[in-house]
Amino acid sequence: MKDKKIRIIPLGGLGEVGRNMMVYEYGDEIIVVDAGLMFPDSDMLGVDYIIPDISYLLERRNKIRAIIITHGHEDHTGSIRHVVEQIQAPIYATPLTRGLIEVKLAKNGLLDRVELHTVQAGDTLEIGSFKIEFFHVCHSIPDGVGLGITTPLGLIVHQSDYKFDHTPVDEKPSDYAKLAEFSQRGVLALLADSTNAERAGWTPSEKVIDDAFDRVFKEAPGRIIIASFASLISRMQQVANAAQRHGRKLAFVGTSMVDNVKMARKLGYLDIPEKLQVSIEQALTLPPDEVVIMCTGSQGEPSSIMGRLSTGTNRLFDIIPGDTVVLSSHPIPGNEENVYRTINRLFQRGANVIYEAIAPVHVSGHASQEEMKLLIHLTRPKFLIPIHGELRQLHQHALLAQQVGIPRENIAIIENGQVLELDGKSLRLAEKVPTSYVFVEGSSVGEVDTDVMREREILARDGIVLVNVVLDRFSGGLRREPQITSRGFMLSRESETVMEEARKRVAGLIGSSLNGNLSRDIEKELSNYIYNETHRRPMIYVTVSRE
Amino acid sequence: MKDKKIRIIPLGGLGEVGRNMMVYEYGDEIIVVDAGLMFPDSDMLGVDYIIPDISYLLERRNKIRAIIITHGHEDHTGSIRHVVEQIQAPIYATPLTRGLIEVKLAKNGLLDRVELHTVQAGDTLEIGSFKIEFFHVCHSIPDGVGLGITTPLGLIVHQSDYKFDHTPVDEKPSDYAKLAEFSQRGVLALLADSTNAERAGWTPSEKVIDDAFDRVFKEAPGRIIIASFASLISRMQQVANAAQRHGRKLAFVGTSMVDNVKMARKLGYLDIPEKLQVSIEQALTLPPDEVVIMCTGSQGEPSSIMGRLSTGTNRLFDIIPGDTVVLSSHPIPGNEENVYRTINRLFQRGANVIYEAIAPVHVSGHASQEEMKLLIHLTRPKFLIPIHGELRQLHQHALLAQQVGIPRENIAIIENGQVLELDGKSLRLAEKVPTSYVFVEGSSVGEVDTDVMREREILARDGIVLVNVVLDRFSGGLRREPQITSRGFMLSRESETVMEEARKRVAGLIGSSLNGNLSRDIEKELSNYIYNETHRRPMIYVTVSRE
Repeated sequence: MKDKKIRIIPLGGLGEVGRNMMVYEYGDEIIVVDAGLMFPDSDMLGVDYIIPDISYLLERRNKIRAIIITHGHEDHTGSIRHVVEQIQAPIYATPLTRGLIEVKLAKNGLLDRVELHTVQAGDTLEIGSFKIEFFHVCHSIPDGVGLGITTPLGLIVHQSDYKFDHTPVDEKPSDYAKLAEFSQRGVLALLADSTNAERAGWTPSEKVIDDAFDRVFKEAPGRIIIASFASLISRMQQVANAAQRHGRKLAFVGTSMVDNVKMARKLGYLDIPEKLQVSIEQALTLPPDEVVIMCTGSQGEPSSIMGRLSTGTNRLFDIIPGDTVVLSSHPIPGNEENVYRTINRLFQRGANVIYEAIAPVHVSGHASQEEMKLLIHLTRPKFLIPIHGELRQLHQHALLAQQVGIPRENIAIIENGQVLELDGKSLRLAEKVPTSYVFVEGSSVGEVDTDVMREREILARDGIVLVNVVLDRFSGGLRREPQITSRGFMLSRESETVMEEARKRVAGLIGSSLNGNLSRDIEKELSNYIYNETHRRPMIYVTVSRE
Repeated sequence: MKDKKIRIIPLGGLGEVGRNMMVYEYGDEIIVVDAGLMFPDSDMLGVDYIIPDISYLLERRNKIRAIIITHGHEDHTGSIRHVVEQIQAPIYATPLTRGLIEVKLAKNGLLDRVELHTVQAGDTLEIGSFKIEFFHVCHSIPDGVGLGITTPLGLIVHQSDYKFDHTPVDEKPSDYAKLAEFSQRGVLALLADSTNAERAGWTPSEKVIDDAFDRVFKEAPGRIIIASFASLISRMQQVANAAQRHGRKLAFVGTSMVDNVKMARKLGYLDIPEKLQVSIEQALTLPPDEVVIMCTGSQGEPSSIMGRLSTGTNRLFDIIPGDTVVLSSHPIPGNEENVYRTINRLFQRGANVIYEAIAPVHVSGHASQEEMKLLIHLTRPKFLIPIHGELRQLHQHALLAQQVGIPRENIAIIENGQVLELDGKSLRLAEKVPTSYVFVEGSSVGEVDTDVMREREILARDGIVLVNVVLDRFSGGLRREPQITSRGFMLSRESETVMEEARKRVAGLIGSSLNGNLSRDIEKELSNYIYNETHRRPMIYVTVSRE
């Protein structure tokens, strides 16, 4: 057993390293940390979300001892339902995280297939050769944890999403003592969130949002409608507190938000007085200046409540002049256009819109540069493995770490799928395991790959030209004029003369192409002709039949 | 003539108000200010850029007395070549702006069709009933001007893109005296840039970039490669100055950048010592730490030099470890993903990448909130018309103006196509004139509309299913099994069983649909079946022939 190594493998597609899933492996034992989803880039056409490629795990199903979830956000929980369909392993989470997972699994009828265990910050769990200590971290959701993972070769600290918030909404500050204690024991490796490595200074406390809300509540002449994520439990608490302070009733709209509120109140993570909360139907009968409505859609998703409000297509109620709309979130990269379009439309409908760019109605949930340095000083790791960021953020994290004394050669910047091996003294890049995007579209998982995506890209850029040729079965000549139509190519009035000539060219090929592949010849000829005339390269699809 | 009014009409598609084109109309006289392009949103599939809908102008061709261009950036000059193909009117611009326009027109063989006039800041031009005074403004390009437009009904100040930069690269500060003089005469209306209305404080001077460059040049161990826009003449000057200070030779790459450098040097807007500049071929033979290369591609455009460098597909040279890459620009909204992807790839290839988020290698060229307030105080207009921004920025600009004493009823927040009428005492919203997106794709202009775009969207999301049915010409029965293929739909191995059943359903329809429209029936049946099975809605295209 002397030459056993700890293997660390970030999974999760080609995006942010290990945000969606991390694998720790020692001999015959594997523990998985987090099972989240990625949001698609805007050129991943038709894709709803992306889940990690878990083929590495599927080949080692029987080695997996535990799946540990650090907190309840989608990018750490969103692929659980796909994972549990293929892997049977106990899942460990704190009460709120567990509650959010249960809401999600129940929606898909998977709740009874999963073995869920509740853990608390402060607990220690022995799982095979791993001893796991859970410690409290601040983030933009309550009940987040970091992990101290004691292995036979040393202590590894896994610091998932965190910030050092001195005045968090749930009044539970970060567990500095535990981090310092780890450092006394000696930390072999620190894996830590790099999301905000480009951001100087210290991320503001969630507390500043209270002041921003106070100002909004004081000035709003009519209804206040606040959009955020359905899982942002602490934001709901802040809205409830502001409503209480300013004498407004609070209504939540949207299934996932309502479900999460119910669960979080039951578990004691949301403290909302009975009289404060009303149904949306009740809220709509109250005077506008006595109401706050909280809903989803802060990313400008067209099908969300805020998206529908902005286009005047919401079912229950509409924007009315005098409404104050608050977008209490940060646009996820790639959503900027949607978010700004939504804001413009809300202004157009007469709402006043308050958003991150003009008032601190949202703050980041991730540590900035000074906090990242503090974490390194607190834990004093031998090795640093920046995680949770794109390559550029990992590089910035590495630069910061060098500034506080970690030698460059003790920092491993890796990408998803890159296996790292630790033997207690040194750190080595081992093999790469498969990572590809697994695209989820509606109910389909992995039925689309990058080749299909490339076809969609061509279709999206220049459309498709459809050619139907009917030959005489006896003479082989044209039976009638070739039919050519198109979809997504160009306006038919503009393409008329091009199409006219195209028909002639197709007809011209009929005699000369008897030996070869007529469909292919037509495709080639039209492709060249259309490109020369229009500088476009639509897909071309030819059918030839004989009558 | 007593009841004549000044009509002000922002054109330019549905985006930023009047950035691309503004129309001033008085009786039978029209002057046009700027003729720029818009960059497409990322869901405008296949579109290269968007130009203003000028149908209002085309109906009044003979009234147009002048086209005035305020500065040489694409969003103010980029549609000139399309405009001059349809409208004959003299164009007025300062020397550098004119030079940039000439480079552009020459490329399209249009130079001799255009009547170009040079004006200088300080000049006054009488054009019909309009007296136009040009005054110098600071921006991120030299030789920008604002306009004082004296009309029979009062003085209108047109303040296009500007910042109050006390230490501009060309050492020509803003013309505060002229603005103050206008205010003494009395300003009827101010139209002013709203781009940065969401940004608190004062935009940093272009000067800060020098310090950031100094740091980069001091620390870079090898080559320095700086990407920016081809029209950012002052950035070129700053790079040249830094190269001079740090003993490096400078090479420009890319046709449009090289052309613009040549023109700007000739006109005296770029001061580069003969010995400093080398060709790219020479640069590649020099020791890496004696070279700076400047190129385009700061927006991560895949076909640009920086885009190609990031993917290892550049022709002349590649990224080598030790290179320092500087992206000296701000991502245009919608380009963020491309830019960040490019940065990640450059890191992957071993470059160190410096970009706006981590060092001030770029600053905005637009005024922030305190500058916007200063402009209002300097000019003391009766009416304010926020321009150059999306609706949300116009609203913020209006809020700022109210803070400095402009009554809300004297501020007109309008959208493109909305005609404003000024009679010297009051301001009134008149009719709306057509504004739609005019899409440019390659060499085609306006050959694509939102319907075509919607088809592309469907194709992009779910692809297309192509069905080919051959019937027996005598019996009307199936001659052979229906052929069904797809493009951009899903992986064929995944869709096999669906397609098998689809073929059966098509076959099943043959007998029953004799009376109706078989193609339409097949389309409907398959559409429902495929949606039920896959939750996708691909486009379906059916051809039926008889043998």
